[in-house]
Amino acid sequence: MFDKWHEECGIFGIFRHSEAARIAYLGLYALQHRGQESAGIVSSDEQKFFVERGMGHVADIFDENTLDRLKGEIAIGHTRYSTAGDSTLKNAQPVVVTCSKGNLALCHNGNLVNAQQVRDRLEKEGSIFQGTSDTEVVLHLIARSRKPTVEESIQEALAQLTGAYCLVFMTRDKMIAVRDPKGFRPFAYGFMNGSPVVASETCAFDLIGAKFEREVEPGEMLIFSGAGSVESRQIFPPVQHSHCIFEHVYFSRPDSFVFGQEVYKSRFQLGIYLAREQPVAADIVVPIPDSGVVAGLGFARESGIPLEFGLIRNHYVGRTFIEPKQSIRNFGVRVKLNPCAHLIRGQRVVLVDDSIVRGTTSRKLIKMVRAAGAKEVHMRISCPPTISPCYYGVDTPTKRELIASSHTVEEICTYIEADSLGYLSYDGMLRACGDVEKKGYFCTACYTGKYPVAFPDGAL
Amino acid sequence: MFDKWHEECGIFGIFRHSEAARIAYLGLYALQHRGQESAGIVSSDEQKFFVERGMGHVADIFDENTLDRLKGEIAIGHTRYSTAGDSTLKNAQPVVVTCSKGNLALCHNGNLVNAQQVRDRLEKEGSIFQGTSDTEVVLHLIARSRKPTVEESIQEALAQLTGAYCLVFMTRDKMIAVRDPKGFRPFAYGFMNGSPVVASETCAFDLIGAKFEREVEPGEMLIFSGAGSVESRQIFPPVQHSHCIFEHVYFSRPDSFVFGQEVYKSRFQLGIYLAREQPVAADIVVPIPDSGVVAGLGFARESGIPLEFGLIRNHYVGRTFIEPKQSIRNFGVRVKLNPCAHLIRGQRVVLVDDSIVRGTTSRKLIKMVRAAGAKEVHMRISCPPTISPCYYGVDTPTKRELIASSHTVEEICTYIEADSLGYLSYDGMLRACGDVEKKGYFCTACYTGKYPVAFPDGAL
Amino acid sequence: MFDKWHEECGIFGIFRHSEAARIAYLGLYALQHRGQESAGIVSSDEQKFFVERGMGHVADIFDENTLDRLKGEIAIGHTRYSTAGDSTLKNAQPVVVTCSKGNLALCHNGNLVNAQQVRDRLEKEGSIFQGTSDTEVVLHLIARSRKPTVEESIQEALAQLTGAYCLVFMTRDKMIAVRDPKGFRPFAYGFMNGSPVVASETCAFDLIGAKFEREVEPGEMLIFSGAGSVESRQIFPPVQHSHCIFEHVYFSRPDSFVFGQEVYKSRFQLGIYLAREQPVAADIVVPIPDSGVVAGLGFARESGIPLEFGLIRNHYVGRTFIEPKQSIRNFGVRVKLNPCAHLIRGQRVVLVDDSIVRGTTSRKLIKMVRAAGAKEVHMRISCPPTISPCYYGVDTPTKRELIASSHTVEEICTYIEADSLGYLSYDGMLRACGDVEKKGYFCTACYTGKYPVAFPDGAL
Amino acid sequence: MFDKWHEECGIFGIFRHSEAARIAYLGLYALQHRGQESAGIVSSDEQKFFVERGMGHVADIFDENTLDRLKGEIAIGHTRYSTAGDSTLKNAQPVVVTCSKGNLALCHNGNLVNAQQVRDRLEKEGSIFQGTSDTEVVLHLIARSRKPTVEESIQEALAQLTGAYCLVFMTRDKMIAVRDPKGFRPFAYGFMNGSPVVASETCAFDLIGAKFEREVEPGEMLIFSGAGSVESRQIFPPVQHSHCIFEHVYFSRPDSFVFGQEVYKSRFQLGIYLAREQPVAADIVVPIPDSGVVAGLGFARESGIPLEFGLIRNHYVGRTFIEPKQSIRNFGVRVKLNPCAHLIRGQRVVLVDDSIVRGTTSRKLIKMVRAAGAKEVHMRISCPPTISPCYYGVDTPTKRELIASSHTVEEICTYIEADSLGYLSYDGMLRACGDVEKKGYFCTACYTGKYPVAFPDGAL
Repeated sequence: MFDKWHEECGIFGIFRHSEAARIAYLGLYALQHRGQESAGIVSSDEQKFFVERGMGHVADIFDENTLDRLKGEIAIGHTRYSTAGDSTLKNAQPVVVTCSKGNLALCHNGNLVNAQQVRDRLEKEGSIFQGTSDTEVVLHLIARSRKPTVEESIQEALAQLTGAYCLVFMTRDKMIAVRDPKGFRPFAYGFMNGSPVVASETCAFDLIGAKFEREVEPGEMLIFSGAGSVESRQIFPPVQHSHCIFEHVYFSRPDSFVFGQEVYKSRFQLGIYLAREQPVAADIVVPIPDSGVVAGLGFARESGIPLEFGLIRNHYVGRTFIEPKQSIRNFGVRVKLNPCAHLIRGQRVVLVDDSIVRGTTSRKLIKMVRAAGAKEVHMRISCPPTISPCYYGVDTPTKRELIASSHTVEEICTYIEADSLGYLSYDGMLRACGDVEKKGYFCTACYTGKYPVAFPDGAL
Repeated sequence: MFDKWHEECGIFGIFRHSEAARIAYLGLYALQHRGQESAGIVSSDEQKFFVERGMGHVADIFDENTLDRLKGEIAIGHTRYSTAGDSTLKNAQPVVVTCSKGNLALCHNGNLVNAQQVRDRLEKEGSIFQGTSDTEVVLHLIARSRKPTVEESIQEALAQLTGAYCLVFMTRDKMIAVRDPKGFRPFAYGFMNGSPVVASETCAFDLIGAKFEREVEPGEMLIFSGAGSVESRQIFPPVQHSHCIFEHVYFSRPDSFVFGQEVYKSRFQLGIYLAREQPVAADIVVPIPDSGVVAGLGFARESGIPLEFGLIRNHYVGRTFIEPKQSIRNFGVRVKLNPCAHLIRGQRVVLVDDSIVRGTTSRKLIKMVRAAGAKEVHMRISCPPTISPCYYGVDTPTKRELIASSHTVEEICTYIEADSLGYLSYDGMLRACGDVEKKGYFCTACYTGKYPVAFPDGAL
Repeated sequence: MFDKWHEECGIFGIFRHSEAARIAYLGLYALQHRGQESAGIVSSDEQKFFVERGMGHVADIFDENTLDRLKGEIAIGHTRYSTAGDSTLKNAQPVVVTCSKGNLALCHNGNLVNAQQVRDRLEKEGSIFQGTSDTEVVLHLIARSRKPTVEESIQEALAQLTGAYCLVFMTRDKMIAVRDPKGFRPFAYGFMNGSPVVASETCAFDLIGAKFEREVEPGEMLIFSGAGSVESRQIFPPVQHSHCIFEHVYFSRPDSFVFGQEVYKSRFQLGIYLAREQPVAADIVVPIPDSGVVAGLGFARESGIPLEFGLIRNHYVGRTFIEPKQSIRNFGVRVKLNPCAHLIRGQRVVLVDDSIVRGTTSRKLIKMVRAAGAKEVHMRISCPPTISPCYYGVDTPTKRELIASSHTVEEICTYIEADSLGYLSYDGMLRACGDVEKKGYFCTACYTGKYPVAFPDGAL
Repeated sequence: MFDKWHEECGIFGIFRHSEAARIAYLGLYALQHRGQESAGIVSSDEQKFFVERGMGHVADIFDENTLDRLKGEIAIGHTRYSTAGDSTLKNAQPVVVTCSKGNLALCHNGNLVNAQQVRDRLEKEGSIFQGTSDTEVVLHLIARSRKPTVEESIQEALAQLTGAYCLVFMTRDKMIAVRDPKGFRPFAYGFMNGSPVVASETCAFDLIGAKFEREVEPGEMLIFSGAGSVESRQIFPPVQHSHCIFEHVYFSRPDSFVFGQEVYKSRFQLGIYLAREQPVAADIVVPIPDSGVVAGLGFARESGIPLEFGLIRNHYVGRTFIEPKQSIRNFGVRVKLNPCAHLIRGQRVVLVDDSIVRGTTSRKLIKMVRAAGAKEVHMRISCPPTISPCYYGVDTPTKRELIASSHTVEEICTYIEADSLGYLSYDGMLRACGDVEKKGYFCTACYTGKYPVAFPDGAL
């Protein structure tokens, strides 16, 4: 699954560090896989805020000059997926505003499910909105809160909102991190030489040499203030968690530690369980790079079928790729992956991938592998069929576009022209991702259609 | 006065034209002298708004592609002076928001004097602000209005605000132009092949071949809707006008028709009256390009002293000019103006300019003219001494920086090292600009310190 | 004549100055009117050459970083007119090569008339060419010279070439300036705090505070070496000069001193003689900005008809201007010039310009002036009819396109729809430009078709 | 070895295709791993050449507009490694010149060892050089050839040159491919729907759907002309081949077929032989991504030690990476690779890489792996020690910088702080890369110091 989902966001914050903006820049660098189309950092020197935002990769947006302009010892940053055009810039993060609470900046990863309803109410009451993001709603509610402190105002605001959110706020002299009560998205907390840091994933800590302390807990608010003091408030009563299992299946980097388990370990075990549940007589296991590689390794290890990197990824594919006007066979997939014919020729091939979305890419891929000489092509997917869209922060196609929402496994197998197709079972997936004891620990709505946070009427 | 003031803004709107955005682009082109550091256009196809904004000259921001993206038959645009950096972008115009009135876009030329007071109140009531411009305040008041229509909401909002404003609003299917009751800034209204247009100055109409109808009247709201119908509402009772006389003295283009008189004519007459009031025995009249040229012509005509273009302007000076590290004599003025020594050598020279702000530039200029061989240098200014800052939309230095606020004409003459210095009288200026009958027709606060619209306590 | 000719080039060189590249940058700044589409500087620290070239204005190409990279105390620079695209870059100047003479850089203003013939011969002998400019030919001939020194090699090379050239060469430790024997183009020589400088026009010296010494003489080679020693060699025997009279009529900046006379003075006298030779009963004199302004002033002075700036120039017109799809009357000229109707209405107007090339622009202009209400429009041109193209460095249209090459003055008058048309006489032009005593001092080929340097067979 | 060598170039040509430039663009896309710092394409419509070149990735340089400008049915392209600055642009390829043979364009992959000697001679004879690349020398020799045809002139020119070269020339209506007699660099030849194509590697053919025919043979000239006719000339007598074995070890993409064998197969076998020759008691095999992955797989397969992707690559590392001022432990390697601690902790780890150059990166890497908890770290290199620089087109450090040129394996092991270090033997490498029968088939100079093509005196 090399081009199907788009990760929404990565967020990062650091408090009281002499090079706060530079560290934030590094943190965003390590989180680029969560969104590489725009990025921004805002810092505070306790008098003023300094903001730099732009379209493109972190490396394209920031240079020595822009980082030098980001003065101060507090900085928060954001990297995201977004579409082109002016409409994007107005949704760019961090969002920075002035209101009754003073200057306020916010980075948000997730999705609020009742944002539109609250927004409608706020508009009726006279609020104005610059963009279309749900993040603005959070700020309006805070601005309208009559609570005496910004912490209490945030709490009051969030009490009116439901859905998935990891938030990092910055005021002139504080940094505040909050995670939704169900803990949908990952949110790591640690220290870099004594300076507190928060990030979407632990891989950001590894790059800057920070020590992972623990996750920001679901329903927790962490308040960083003064010379580096940390206060924890449980601002929502404990509820059953709903960690996004897709972070393990696909999103997070394999070197991150997410929801209490290494992502690499989860993926490897997904491959192992997949091999056990969906065995096949074959000559080689070929993982779809990069997301299927670790599961493919697990599959190979368990099945005893040798692993081969039969599909080579072109690392230099950018967003803009100009196709020839005249059609080239299998061009769409070939520009990203090229088969090693000598490995595939005459072989019974098991392709290991992490999902089938619309089925069109799998179909082209299998056609290409067959054209390279494969005798048989068996598709194995390291999770159950994806039948429902995500409303908690993953950019999925509509239900209608998800092939598994309206087709049986057999029908999908026919459509993608595989010799066989096997998905990992629901239980297998849960077990592989560490949910052995604690049933319901994960949000699996995309596989079950059961959404752990309800939608307002008509929201879908 | 080639680098002392910065014009704030030019605005433009066109309703029901098949090439609305392209015409808006041309209109902004003709208004570049009012602000060439950023520009933007928003258009509506009655379903959606399309926005393009950027830093730099109109010509740098818009190309065929960006203009093609601006679909629809209604468009409003803005060009402005602004400083660099991210802080600017958040203040960029047109401002486009969503609120209880639906999509709303706004371009503003002028300055609201009680904006901060209203903003403080709005923040207390929970409003959030993206930037620091007073224009946001207008939109917040509209969004909060309980009036049933957008027109009434605008009226209610503006009733709470004082100061100088020409505004052009766009909703999905309407364009609304409003001018403050005192008519501080110019605001022309006309038709281009039947399509209504509004613009800061008539020179924009000339470029697009539109016919000037009349000014948007002080206190008037013009509502353009349907297939091109125009409704006029006088939303404020008539008060004495306060047209910015500085538009005639310096701001507007000489080919514009402003406040009922051609700017060229005003400047020429300023020169004539100046020659009468401040005669001098001299050999040549040298105007300071470009703003002093027409007044210089008038001075020469009246005095009989021949006009010579003794200072040649370098047309290619951009915003970024890298100076040598080692000092070069008179470099700062010479990079913009170069004297023709053969004209000046041995001559008694009258320099005609339109103002002295800090005095430093005049001092350098006179030094340079003397170095070119002038026997005497007499400075003549086509208006009275500038003693007070503008709070109605002209970017002037503080009172403290204005040399005439604390020095007599003799002291200024000594400082700038002129052989003589003469300013036009207050009455002469008024007469030259057409205010013969109607005393008080103009705002002349920068010359008198008498501000026609009061400030809230502590606003200055 | 605001858009008809394109100046070819401006060149600049400075020897032994601690900020050589920065001074070269300033020099090019002052020479932008000679070509603002590309520019380049090469410097030498006596070990290595440092080169920066780019498309666009000098201000766009150079910043602190690029100037800092241009190390060393010798620098030469070039600014030119050129068309877009890659083909241009390969013709970009300064040209920098390595050959038997070591590193060699060259800036060239002018045009060699036998370049193609020499190039054909060189190609037959095995030379390769990167671009299409005649400047490369000079370098090839130098490279092939067997003379022991670079000075002698240059002399040998130039002995094989005919036409117009001002050249400034740079070797690792020398700067060498050469002007063709007939002195077609201007070439000033002076000192900036003791450091020798050369430039196309003296206005470059004024900006940097350099003192004009004299022109580089026709046929002279100036060799700057060592700590700042200057050697002059007359490398060609004296011949009758052929200074381009069009430099006075149009090209050079009015504040430059060219061929022994101030350009401003020439233009003023052109206007005076024009008024004497081509009197007209009229109410106002309106010069075409910017090039017609000084002649217009002279015309007004001599005729006693008052001068008015009845056409206002839009200073912000860039190279890319997007026209509306729908036609706007007189749009092409109006985007650059706008008439002040109140000055023109009901008046008999004399338009003063410096040339008519194809006639199409004049025709549109007159139409526009009539539409603004002029009762009569009389066109007066401050030189004789332009009947022949220039082959010595001015980018003129072909003979066929020059309206005066095939039409009488009466026919042109009819075509441009003027009430009358009058050109200055040939003798009047010569006298105005200072050629009273020395007949033949100027090249006037564009007015006479008599070319002072012959062309190889078939060259035209 | 993720950042040690820089591949020099990739070249591509296509003849008689309706979308020649677009296909060339795709070909270069697939060859980006051979040089991603600049690229260029030149096309011919048989009348004119069209050139586009730029700095950066192929995707950054070319867009629809630039590709549309590249008209015609013949196109050749080049992608290369290069340093920043103006000096690069003058060395940019394709090189396009005009000479006695008409217009001529050239792309070159390789390095000529006697270029400087020939260049010195040419300069003495009057040639001028724009840049410093050896490619210009080829063109000068062709231009000077008296042979009647361009093919013979190329042959005569190449007869004077020694070293490594794959060349693709374009004239107005021909494409000519030539490979040096020893066949140093790979050069594939095939057909895309009947249109002949040549490319550095077969992976370019896969992307465009072309069929690989055979290699351009060492010493062969292929002449494509007319409607698509191909003529082969063996322009040099057969000599023993010297294929660069490093193309198998590191350079080429694993999905390419190079010198008669799949690169993937070679690397896998390098891993197998390495495991046999340098066995080690360990728990996991961790390959260094990306270049060590296939060899690591082979090592794991042969040794029976499980493969784990214990080092995760950050795919978003660009050329400009801003380091914090304050040091972060192991930052230099960590920005590219991050260890999965849970895989490594307490394990005996075998790291498989394809070379050690200076040793500094390996040292940091091992330090980082130990910090992640490894009990033991054993380094295994899939080729012999690199003791000598390459002079045939690979950008290697000097001999002095190559740690193996002056240190024993034991000393290197100590320096990099590994528990053990094992290199593959010379014979093992040859066998793995397919050189079983034909001894001497490969150039192995970097491992032996024995250079198959002699250098002129003093060339090193």
